[in-house]
Amino acid sequence: MSAGDNEPRNKQLLLKRVPEGISGPEDFEVREAPVPELQEGELLVQAHYFGVDAALRLITRDSDEFLFRVKPGDMVHGSMAGRVVRSRHAQFSEGEYVHGSLGIQNYAVSNGEGLERCDLTQAPLGAWLGGFGVSGLTAYFAVTDVCRPQPGQTVLINGAAGAVGSIAGQICRLAGARVIGLTGSSAKCDWLTSELGYDVAINYRDADWYEQLQRAAPDRLDVIFDNVGGKVLDESLKLIGMRGTVLLCGSTSQYSEAHMQGPANYIWLGTMRARLQGFVVFDYADRYAEARRVMARWIEAGQLLIPFWEVAGDVDMFPEAYQKMYLGENLGKTLVRLPAAEALGGAA
Amino acid sequence: MSAGDNEPRNKQLLLKRVPEGISGPEDFEVREAPVPELQEGELLVQAHYFGVDAALRLITRDSDEFLFRVKPGDMVHGSMAGRVVRSRHAQFSEGEYVHGSLGIQNYAVSNGEGLERCDLTQAPLGAWLGGFGVSGLTAYFAVTDVCRPQPGQTVLINGAAGAVGSIAGQICRLAGARVIGLTGSSAKCDWLTSELGYDVAINYRDADWYEQLQRAAPDRLDVIFDNVGGKVLDESLKLIGMRGTVLLCGSTSQYSEAHMQGPANYIWLGTMRARLQGFVVFDYADRYAEARRVMARWIEAGQLLIPFWEVAGDVDMFPEAYQKMYLGENLGKTLVRLPAAEALGGAA
Repeated sequence: MSAGDNEPRNKQLLLKRVPEGISGPEDFEVREAPVPELQEGELLVQAHYFGVDAALRLITRDSDEFLFRVKPGDMVHGSMAGRVVRSRHAQFSEGEYVHGSLGIQNYAVSNGEGLERCDLTQAPLGAWLGGFGVSGLTAYFAVTDVCRPQPGQTVLINGAAGAVGSIAGQICRLAGARVIGLTGSSAKCDWLTSELGYDVAINYRDADWYEQLQRAAPDRLDVIFDNVGGKVLDESLKLIGMRGTVLLCGSTSQYSEAHMQGPANYIWLGTMRARLQGFVVFDYADRYAEARRVMARWIEAGQLLIPFWEVAGDVDMFPEAYQKMYLGENLGKTLVRLPAAEALGGAA
Repeated sequence: MSAGDNEPRNKQLLLKRVPEGISGPEDFEVREAPVPELQEGELLVQAHYFGVDAALRLITRDSDEFLFRVKPGDMVHGSMAGRVVRSRHAQFSEGEYVHGSLGIQNYAVSNGEGLERCDLTQAPLGAWLGGFGVSGLTAYFAVTDVCRPQPGQTVLINGAAGAVGSIAGQICRLAGARVIGLTGSSAKCDWLTSELGYDVAINYRDADWYEQLQRAAPDRLDVIFDNVGGKVLDESLKLIGMRGTVLLCGSTSQYSEAHMQGPANYIWLGTMRARLQGFVVFDYADRYAEARRVMARWIEAGQLLIPFWEVAGDVDMFPEAYQKMYLGENLGKTLVRLPAAEALGGAA
C-alpha cells in the first residue's frame, strides 16, 4: 500500500456471545479499528484468506477447561494467509506471502513469531491454510507416523470429506490401504470415490449406514481415523480390528453439544487390544518442510488433490462460512476468500 | 473319592434370568446333576475355590454383541481351582491341583484343555484364581509391558482395592512410581496405604474426591490404570499427562448399566497426545511361567502381597459373594471357598 492510498480501516470479527448449538452470524459482530502503526521488528499482513477451523467451536464454549479460550468481546481466533504490506522486520519483506494464527481481521500486526512463508510454487496461497497447511500436515503425520496403514489393510475415515479427512484418505490410499469414507451426503460420497479415490463412501445419514459399513469391512477395521466423535465414532468402534488404531484427530460433532458424549463402545478397544490415540500436529513442527516436499511431489504427480471450498466475502462473511461448514456444505477445507485476494487475480 | 463313598451329586449354578442392575441371588438357581463318568482322555476336578469375576456381569447382559454370552438356563461361566479326583488323562494324576474355566459347579469334567497345574509351593490354591492367576498376570503384563511406569512418575489406579488393582498398584510401586489409588471406602483407603504401600488413597464417594486427586497429582498423571470406567474414568481423564497411557483393563461400573456410558473427556487424550490402550492378558500366555517366577520371588521377599477375600460356602453362595463384590465389600480378589477346601485344612 503506497502512501497515496486512502488510509484503510481494519475490520475485526468479535465473538458477541457464547454460542448455543451450531454457531451462526448472530453470535458475532464486526468492529472497525484503525490499521496500527508498526514498531521496529514488526510487520503488517493483509488478509487474503481466512481458514475456517472446526476447533473454534470448542474454544468458544462457556468453559475454561480447554487450553485456549475465545470469550465474548474477544477477537475471533483463526488462521490467515496474506501478503506482507509493510515491514519493519529484518526477516520479512513487503510483497511476501505468509500465514499464521493472526485472527479474523483484514490487517494483522505480527512480530514474526509463528509466521510461516508460503511458497506459491509448491501450492496456491489458500492451500496453505488447508490441505497444504495444518490440516494437511495433520493428515500426513497422523497417517504416516501413527496409523501407519499397510497394503491390504482397511481404513475408515470419519469425516472423510472434511479438511483433514479429505487428505488423510488419499494418503492412506497411497499407502496401499483400502479406504472407506463416512460423510454426510450422497454428493460427498460421489466426490470421495470419483475425485479422491476412496474405495467406498457411505452416507452416515442413511438409516442402514452401519450395515453398509459392516459389509464394506468384512475383516474389520485396522485403522479408524476419527474427526467427528459422537455416534459415528461410537458405532464404528464396534468394528475395530485386532491391535487396531483409532486416531483421535477431532470431535467436531461434540463441540456444539451442551453435554459432550463419550463413546460407550470404547470397551471394544479392550476386547480388540486396540488403542485410541491422541495426536497434535504441532509436535512435528521440525518436520513440516519434509512433509511439504513429499506432498508437493504427490501434487505434481497428480496423486494428491488439495481440495478447498471457498466462500468469497469480507470479514463479515466468516460467520456464515463457519455455519455452512458445520452444516456440512464444504468439500475439503473451508476458506473465506477476501477482496484483497480478488485484486491479485489468480496469483494468490 | 474312593469306591466306598456315597456317589456325590454335582450342584451347578445356572443363570435364571438376565439381571437388571447389580445381579443378586434371585438371578440364579441351582440344579443338581449326577457326577458324569469319565471317557478316555478326561479328568474330573472337584472345586475348592470359585473365582468371582466382575466380567461375568458383562456376559450375562441381554446382548449378543460380546464374544461370549451366558444366557438364562446356561451354567454360569467362571473360574475354578480344585483337585483332580479321577483321571483317565495321560498328563494329569489324581491328587494334583489345577485351575481353569470350569464353571460354577462342584465337579467338572475336562479334557485338559486350558487347565493349568497349581504349584502350591509358589502360592496357595486360592491365589491361583486371583493375584497369582489371571488377575495378577493381568496386572503384571499391563504394568510391565504396556504402562511401563518410570521412577518419579505418577500412576492412578481406578478400582485400586480390586483383584487387579491391588496387584497393579504394588507392581507400580516396585517400579519406583508414585501410586495413587481410587477406591470406594475409607477402610479400603487405609488398607491401600498401610498394607499395600500406596502413596495416596482417595475415596471416590467423597464429594471432593476430584479435588483431592488434583492435589495429589500436581504434575498430572503419567498412567491411569482403569478397571472401572464410568464417572471415575471420565473425571480422571482430565488429569492425564503428556503422552500418558490410560490402560483399559475393565469397566466394571458399566457392566450393570442398562445404557453404558463412554468417557466424554476422552477429548483430553487428544490435547495430551495420550492413548487409551486396550489389553487382554491371554496374549501373554507363553510368558505366564516367567511372570509367576518373578512374582513368587517378590512374594517370598515380602515385596508383594496377594490379597484375597474369601466367602465360605457351597455353589449356592456364589451369587451372594458376587453381589457383595459389586457392592464393594472385597479387598483384593473375591473367592468362594467350598466345603471340599475345608476338608483339606490349610493345605489348599
